[in-house]
Amino acid sequence: MITNRRNFLKSAGMLTAAAALFNPASLFAQKGSKKSGSSKVMKLEFEPYELQFKHAFAISTLTRTTTPIVLTKITYDGYTGYGEASMPPYLGESHASVLDFLKRVDLSQFSSPFMIEDIMAYVDSISTNNCAAKASVDIALHDLVGRIMGQPWWKIWGFDAADCPNTSYTVGLDTRDVIIEKTKEAAPYKVIKVKLGHDEATDKMLINTIREVTDTVICVDANQGWKDKNYALDMINWLAERNVNMIEQPLSKYMLDDTAWLTERSPLPIIADEACQRLSDVKKLHGAYSGINIKLMKCTGLHEAREMITLAQALNMKLMVGCMSETSCGITAAAQIAPKMEWVDLDGNLLITNDRFTGGMEIVDGKVTLSDRPGLGIEPIKA
Amino acid sequence: MITNRRNFLKSAGMLTAAAALFNPASLFAQKGSKKSGSSKVMKLEFEPYELQFKHAFAISTLTRTTTPIVLTKITYDGYTGYGEASMPPYLGESHASVLDFLKRVDLSQFSSPFMIEDIMAYVDSISTNNCAAKASVDIALHDLVGRIMGQPWWKIWGFDAADCPNTSYTVGLDTRDVIIEKTKEAAPYKVIKVKLGHDEATDKMLINTIREVTDTVICVDANQGWKDKNYALDMINWLAERNVNMIEQPLSKYMLDDTAWLTERSPLPIIADEACQRLSDVKKLHGAYSGINIKLMKCTGLHEAREMITLAQALNMKLMVGCMSETSCGITAAAQIAPKMEWVDLDGNLLITNDRFTGGMEIVDGKVTLSDRPGLGIEPIKA
Repeated sequence: MITNRRNFLKSAGMLTAAAALFNPASLFAQKGSKKSGSSKVMKLEFEPYELQFKHAFAISTLTRTTTPIVLTKITYDGYTGYGEASMPPYLGESHASVLDFLKRVDLSQFSSPFMIEDIMAYVDSISTNNCAAKASVDIALHDLVGRIMGQPWWKIWGFDAADCPNTSYTVGLDTRDVIIEKTKEAAPYKVIKVKLGHDEATDKMLINTIREVTDTVICVDANQGWKDKNYALDMINWLAERNVNMIEQPLSKYMLDDTAWLTERSPLPIIADEACQRLSDVKKLHGAYSGINIKLMKCTGLHEAREMITLAQALNMKLMVGCMSETSCGITAAAQIAPKMEWVDLDGNLLITNDRFTGGMEIVDGKVTLSDRPGLGIEPIKA
Repeated sequence: MITNRRNFLKSAGMLTAAAALFNPASLFAQKGSKKSGSSKVMKLEFEPYELQFKHAFAISTLTRTTTPIVLTKITYDGYTGYGEASMPPYLGESHASVLDFLKRVDLSQFSSPFMIEDIMAYVDSISTNNCAAKASVDIALHDLVGRIMGQPWWKIWGFDAADCPNTSYTVGLDTRDVIIEKTKEAAPYKVIKVKLGHDEATDKMLINTIREVTDTVICVDANQGWKDKNYALDMINWLAERNVNMIEQPLSKYMLDDTAWLTERSPLPIIADEACQRLSDVKKLHGAYSGINIKLMKCTGLHEAREMITLAQALNMKLMVGCMSETSCGITAAAQIAPKMEWVDLDGNLLITNDRFTGGMEIVDGKVTLSDRPGLGIEPIKA
């Protein structure tokens, strides 16, 4: 009953309160990255928003047409940094839970936005979960601090932008004709991503249909959809003969031993997605998976993502970066680590009709292309 | 024979060539951190130098009065960054080997000093060892890039300068009277470091003599001096009763199993020093040691040191930063990671009479104190 009451507050009262408090047009419509004031106190603002999909989005368990997000902004000393929380329903967050969380964040206690370790340790201590809400603070902080230093984060971290791999473009499950049409749309991309984990006939139909159109390499995300390790191994062997080069989350995230069995026998690398949330998961997955899929909305943002990279590399684990449905803000934040990745799945902003930012990461000839602009290099556009 | 000839070249010919090529007074005497030119090609320069000790320096195997170092500087776009290689004889490097190495480094092939990962991967590929020479490039690069961004590295990394611990001050083996005098000199420090690993009577005399003067906490570095695990455990139990709070390298770096045995039974944390050189060592030491001592001259510099921190933390290993005899350049570089350390042993520049830099890390009331100045925040002084 207590849980129910809290959920009710989260999904009703708080959202209304937030809607009254924050006016999207006034908060995010102005160009805000340049010096426009000079308070040396960090101020966090936020606004709920709803992303609209170009195509309905099908994964193994449901179909959706929108994703709720919350846009954040932190101002300090005349600089503004932008962030974002994206809340696909399976993560258990919502407008209400994120707004509720962000109202509890008091950044005025920190003397400088550079204190990212202390600030994120504090933000992380506010609640057990709320990873997307935490990421929305982390991303805005990084944008802010990068703007102050006059550099993008890929450069601050010493990465080489030329190391960015091709990004994948998702072809979802649909009728045969629509799959063919979508595969043709994906022609500018060098990698196709396919979400499997349906029944065998459906999974094979999807792959075979794509293969009628193109031989472009395919990344498969099974989204925990395969129930048995032997079946999964058969499927992977079948896929390996069809120019598939990796499998994300073939089995349930709870089936660690079965996944280790599968990874040992699989001709393709097995990447943890649902099984890998945060830095503390990486060590546990070592030996069972070939690598990890880092998503900022799961790992609380760029600060922890940077540490996950170091740890995974030290453990000889492969690296991938993924995303939710996000604006160019979240996607460009994730793109900062693209030079260290073997696979990049950052098409979240390409699949929506109502982005809120320009100037972020671009896909040029299928490849992630990072700008030299400070912070994330993005600017807000009118809603 | 081939080795001998190479050693001869290293210790004679190359040093002479270097001495002819580089004039200390002209290279390092000017104030060089501000814009003074604008070539967008990185230029590496270097100069051999000899540090003079205030006191002769005794460890378990020898006594010395000087340490050879090489000062480096990288210029780019009107900015200058300073670095340093320190070559205590037990590391196997010398003026000749470092100068020989640095002559092979061609930074002009890189378009930007921000490409620290690529540059250090290239530098590391030039030879198998030469870690101090590699560190001298890494430190100068970090100073340079920090100056371009207008920030010190502890801040760029998101650390909190207030987290810096007290540094230790070394009281070396000597006569009873000199030990008493030196212990009194150490009064401003909150931690005393003692190098043990002599015979039992000598080790105990040193500790007992210090304890006649002060109860200040002691860090013990046994420098691989204890030959047997049972003897080491007895000594550690004896030390634990005398306000000692950690033991560095009690046994030979090759005695990994014996060290694991000892760590399991020791009331004090056991820290790897000689056993821990680089990032790749950390994982191997996990389980056998409680933590690691990071030294820039062993691990090729700040870039790798930053990764060692992340890995050690993920493996629940304790962290310490140490140094060789170095100028304020190398010491201040190492101090950038001090906020993440449990123990800091950065007195290398306090024990020499001929420092070459001002403006670096300071010890205030026994505590490492970092400046807000860009890069390392140091300026060269006349030789």
